[in-house]
Amino acid sequence: MTVTGIIAEFNPFHNGHKYLLKQAEGLKIVAMSGNFVQRGEPAIVDKWIRAQMALENGADLVVELPFLVAVQSADHFAKGAVEILSRLGIDQLTFGTEAVLDYQVIATVYSEKEAEMEAFLRSLPEDLSYPQKTQKMWETFAGVEFTGDTPNHILGLAYAKACAGKGITLKPIKRQGAGYHSEEKEVAYASATSIRLHKEDQDFVAKFMPNSQLFQSAPQVSWEDYDQLLRYQILTHPDLTQIFQVNEELANRIKEAVRSTSSVEELVEKVATKRYTKARVRRILTYILVGATEQALPDAIHVLGFSAKGQAHLKGLKKSVEIVTRIGKEPWDALTQQADQVYQLGHPQLPEQIWGRVPVRVEDQ
Amino acid sequence: MTVTGIIAEFNPFHNGHKYLLKQAEGLKIVAMSGNFVQRGEPAIVDKWIRAQMALENGADLVVELPFLVAVQSADHFAKGAVEILSRLGIDQLTFGTEAVLDYQVIATVYSEKEAEMEAFLRSLPEDLSYPQKTQKMWETFAGVEFTGDTPNHILGLAYAKACAGKGITLKPIKRQGAGYHSEEKEVAYASATSIRLHKEDQDFVAKFMPNSQLFQSAPQVSWEDYDQLLRYQILTHPDLTQIFQVNEELANRIKEAVRSTSSVEELVEKVATKRYTKARVRRILTYILVGATEQALPDAIHVLGFSAKGQAHLKGLKKSVEIVTRIGKEPWDALTQQADQVYQLGHPQLPEQIWGRVPVRVEDQ
Repeated sequence: MTVTGIIAEFNPFHNGHKYLLKQAEGLKIVAMSGNFVQRGEPAIVDKWIRAQMALENGADLVVELPFLVAVQSADHFAKGAVEILSRLGIDQLTFGTEAVLDYQVIATVYSEKEAEMEAFLRSLPEDLSYPQKTQKMWETFAGVEFTGDTPNHILGLAYAKACAGKGITLKPIKRQGAGYHSEEKEVAYASATSIRLHKEDQDFVAKFMPNSQLFQSAPQVSWEDYDQLLRYQILTHPDLTQIFQVNEELANRIKEAVRSTSSVEELVEKVATKRYTKARVRRILTYILVGATEQALPDAIHVLGFSAKGQAHLKGLKKSVEIVTRIGKEPWDALTQQADQVYQLGHPQLPEQIWGRVPVRVEDQ
Repeated sequence: MTVTGIIAEFNPFHNGHKYLLKQAEGLKIVAMSGNFVQRGEPAIVDKWIRAQMALENGADLVVELPFLVAVQSADHFAKGAVEILSRLGIDQLTFGTEAVLDYQVIATVYSEKEAEMEAFLRSLPEDLSYPQKTQKMWETFAGVEFTGDTPNHILGLAYAKACAGKGITLKPIKRQGAGYHSEEKEVAYASATSIRLHKEDQDFVAKFMPNSQLFQSAPQVSWEDYDQLLRYQILTHPDLTQIFQVNEELANRIKEAVRSTSSVEELVEKVATKRYTKARVRRILTYILVGATEQALPDAIHVLGFSAKGQAHLKGLKKSVEIVTRIGKEPWDALTQQADQVYQLGHPQLPEQIWGRVPVRVEDQ
């Protein structure tokens, strides 16, 4: 049977995600962010709820991206996620995108010219942001054209890069309806961004989410719930440059800016420059919030949930793939677990995220 | 004119403190804890409010104890405070005590036998707490008897030690009415502990505090308001042994205990042992909350408020005594200021504690 991988955040899970899962073929394995997401913020509902949403709508297996894969720029995010899915035996990768190109050709270009393309990247002026450099690289080597705000397309290219030479077939699916960051309400499909924005509007949520009740009854958080902790951390941390990706310059800018700003978004605005994009600053603030230091990624793969089919697939995996279904005294990934504990401080109703938690199970549909 | 020093916390200021100030002679200089107090907790109202209370009830000058003097065991607290008062030119030290002994004789004993007494202290078994050792020392060398819970008496002895050989006359005043930790309501004088306990009871507060309105309208905090920050700090700190007085053993005990306790008081209970008294554990948790590392005490003295007489006294001081009346770009004491910023996170209505703050002024009475 075909085994399809999907890299996702489901922040939160909506009809577009359901459509994507329906389009995917065979056994469907999702590699999903945990409690913090790629754009550098806490997930609106916790990973267990989001895994359940996915499993109730077609996923067979949901595994967790370690914190240092989930909260990373597109390239590292894609590379880390593809690595995990590849070990879980996928032969296809399905993803939504604004622009359905022949990603397979693009992957081939990259696998043939990797060294040259990476050298080109490094040769670009320092004042360009990394996303800008990447776009120039694809324009130059693969003739890809970029028009405005198409983040899933950019992620798609990162997936193409990550899959290059791995024998994984790329299966882009055209995103339905609203763009990723769309804030409009009058569309057939709503983006995760617009659902987060209109989360209080029950009718809106019910219209665009398959599991709206589960979502609405779950404790929801946003950066606001961690604002005080972040300030406190910046204030009392003995040396912010110990934190992943924080250099002396950023540490000083952040310490200075925190005194004159009253929200995380203001802080992001104040610290961001042409070179340090807002997304990157938001991720760096997430590293600071969590107290993240650079460390090796875990070897084991943490399972958040499965169907019977998904569970059977796990049993058939090679012995070399270590699977964690219940975190015990030994951590699965110390940093992810630290992030989970910090996440839990954001809402008094958030349940225990780590100890005693076992995979969510759903009946095969 | 006689210049009298008083070492205080005024947490909060009550009728007993007013009585003490009235008994003191001449110009009255108070060396007061800042926003964190000796027993290892946030002051119930901020230092500016407490300074104002003191000035409106007889104090002429209120200066701030640096964090690492204020939040210390009795001996260090007394030594640091006496040092500051001595530089401000006091010739008497007045303090309340449960037992009016001849502290002057005790001070003389200590100045004559200091080396011997300190050697005796060091020779005592390791499983005794520091307060227990100190009591044994006073019993052995000065024939002082201890009966139960008399914390001000113990502080009095620490003052005697700190004043030994400094030419400062010790003027103990018998405490009126309730003992320091008394929780009873039906007494003429109420202790600060009982006022903190009954802070919601307006009649009680009004009966035992001269400035009850100021107190009741001020933002009030307790450990509860910092519980989440403390948990977060313990969770994310890269290395708790960097914190003042935290060794490997304590770091592990605290990290372990925080998982199974739901309040700071429970955490204190769980971490305290015969050797690590609860007061000491509470102070250590305060160091952790504030992110305190060992550092030199400031040379300058920070003024919280004065009367005209107090201000005139400041002007007459030797040039060698550096006075700070307004904290600018250069910190007065970096750690105290860090503590102030952490303190401010405990209540949304707490005003700025540092920048732009100038001494509280009261008319001479």
